[in-house]
Amino acid sequence: MPVELVDSPRVDLQAEAGRVSARIDDFFARLLPSPDDGRGQLYDAMRHAAIGGGKRLRPLLTVAASRLFGIDEERALRVAAAIEAIHVYSLIHDDLPAMDDDDLRRGRPTLHKAYDEATAILAGDSLHALAFEILAHEATDPDPLVRSDLVLELSRAAGPNGMAGGQMMDLLAEGEALDIAAITRLQQLKTGALIEYAVEAACILTSLGREARTPYRGYARNVGLAFQIADDLIDHSGDEAAAGKRIGKDAEAGKATFVSLLGEDRARQQARVLVDQAVDHLADHGEEADLLRAIARFAVERDR
Amino acid sequence: MPVELVDSPRVDLQAEAGRVSARIDDFFARLLPSPDDGRGQLYDAMRHAAIGGGKRLRPLLTVAASRLFGIDEERALRVAAAIEAIHVYSLIHDDLPAMDDDDLRRGRPTLHKAYDEATAILAGDSLHALAFEILAHEATDPDPLVRSDLVLELSRAAGPNGMAGGQMMDLLAEGEALDIAAITRLQQLKTGALIEYAVEAACILTSLGREARTPYRGYARNVGLAFQIADDLIDHSGDEAAAGKRIGKDAEAGKATFVSLLGEDRARQQARVLVDQAVDHLADHGEEADLLRAIARFAVERDR
Repeated sequence: MPVELVDSPRVDLQAEAGRVSARIDDFFARLLPSPDDGRGQLYDAMRHAAIGGGKRLRPLLTVAASRLFGIDEERALRVAAAIEAIHVYSLIHDDLPAMDDDDLRRGRPTLHKAYDEATAILAGDSLHALAFEILAHEATDPDPLVRSDLVLELSRAAGPNGMAGGQMMDLLAEGEALDIAAITRLQQLKTGALIEYAVEAACILTSLGREARTPYRGYARNVGLAFQIADDLIDHSGDEAAAGKRIGKDAEAGKATFVSLLGEDRARQQARVLVDQAVDHLADHGEEADLLRAIARFAVERDR
Repeated sequence: MPVELVDSPRVDLQAEAGRVSARIDDFFARLLPSPDDGRGQLYDAMRHAAIGGGKRLRPLLTVAASRLFGIDEERALRVAAAIEAIHVYSLIHDDLPAMDDDDLRRGRPTLHKAYDEATAILAGDSLHALAFEILAHEATDPDPLVRSDLVLELSRAAGPNGMAGGQMMDLLAEGEALDIAAITRLQQLKTGALIEYAVEAACILTSLGREARTPYRGYARNVGLAFQIADDLIDHSGDEAAAGKRIGKDAEAGKATFVSLLGEDRARQQARVLVDQAVDHLADHGEEADLLRAIARFAVERDR
C-alpha cells in the first residue's frame, strides 16, 4: 500500500517548519551575542553555523512529538535547540578537510572556509558543550530527573555509540563492499541516533518510561532511515543548486549506498515502505500526530 | 611568608596520585572495550589518549576535595573520570595541526600522529560526549539534581565561556602584546575553568549551595593559576625529556606569558604567593584537607 505523498490537509508543514526554524534562529541569536574579547570570532563562527540554514528536521521532530503529549512549546524549543546545536557541531566537524572535506553547506561556505580550521574545530566543540548546558539548565525543565535523562540520552546519541561512531564507520567505508545490513547499521549510528533522540526527547519531557517510548522511537527509526535513503537519492541524481551542497560524493568516494545496492527504483520503494511503517506507529493518535505524519511524508518527497 | 615546599608528612602525594591514576586508567579500560565493527579504531584511539599518561591533576583534585566532605571515593572517581575525559579531549583537539600542531604529548606521539587527523577529531568528540554520559548516569549519584548540576557546571567549564573560549583567545594571542590581566583572564578560561570544576564537583556531590562553594573555588582558582605559571616556567627553561612534550613553544610563537612579562624570579615568587593563598582557603579544615594542601605545593615544585 503506497503512502499518499501529499501533506495532511490539517497541517501546513511548510508553515510549521518555517516557524520552528525562525524560533531556533532567534534562540541562538539571543544565546550567542559576541563578547568583547578574543572570543568574538568564536561566537561569530557559532552563529554563522547555527543560524539561518538547514531543514531543521530535528527541531521540527521534537516540536511535533511534543504536540502528542501537550508539552509546552517553549520547553520543546529549548530541547530542540540543544539537538540542533549537536547536529550543527557534527556538520562542522564532518565538513573539515581531514573528514569529508566539503566547501559548501546549506548553500554557503563551510565554516572552515568562512573562517579557518581552528575556529571551526572550536566552534563545533563549543556548540557540543552548549547543547548539554541548555539541557541541564533548570529553564529547560523544573524536574532534575528529566534534565538528567535528556542529557544521558543525548550524550549516547552523540558519542562513540551514536554519531561519532557512525562517522568513523563511514570514513572507513570508502572502497569497502558494505551490504545493506552494514549500511543500515552505519546510518542508524551516524544520522539515525540523533533523529531518534529528537523524538525520544519529547517522551522524556513527558516522563514516559523506557517501554512506553517504543512506538515513538520506532517511528523515528523508520523516518531516519527513509530520510537517509532520500539523501542517497539526492546525492545520486539530485540537483546541486537545490540541494545546497556538493552531490555525487558517495559514488566518487566509491562508497556503497542504499541506491548503489538497491538501484533507484527499489530504494525509492523502500523509503515509502519505511514511511508507511513510521505512520503505523502513530495509529493510536489522532490529529495531534498529523505534524509527525506530514514530516514522515516529507522525508521522502523532498529534493534537498 | 613563603610556603614550605615539602609534602605534608601526613599524606604521601605520590602514592595517592599513583593510586588515583591507576583507578582512572582502570575505569577507562573497562568503559572502552573495542567493539567488533568499524568503530574499533575509534575506541583504540580513545584508549590510547585516555589511558596511561599525564599527571592526572584534575582527577586527583576531585578525589582530594571529596575527602573534605567524606564523599564515597567510588562516586568521586566516576566524576573524576568524566573530568579527565574532557581534559583529554581538549588536549587531542589542541594538538591538531590546525591548532597547536604538536607531535608529542605525555612522552608519546599525539593522537593524530599515532592514527590520523579524522580519528583524532572523532576520538576527542567521543570523549567529550562520554564525559556527560558518565555524569548523567545514575551510577554517579542517586540524586538527579546532583547529576544535572554536575553536567551544567562541566558544560560551562568546557564551552565557549571556558576551555574552548580560552583556546580561541590563545590562538589569537600570537604576536599580541597581552598584559598580565589579559593573560590571567585567558588562562582562567583555558585551563582554570576545568581545574576549578574539578574541585567544585566535590561540592556539588555533597550538595553544597553556590555560596558555600566559594572558598573551595578560590582554592582551585589559585592552584590553577600557580599551576599555569609553573607550566610557563617549564616551557621557558624546563627539560624536554622530563616534560614529555616540546618546550620553548610560547617564545617561538611570540606569545606573552607570565614568565616573559614578570621574569623568571618574580613569576616563581608569584606562584608561591598563589599557593599560600590557596592553602589559606582551607583554614577551616584539618587533616582531611592535607591532600589538597599537598597538591597546591606540588603545583609549583614540579618539573613536568
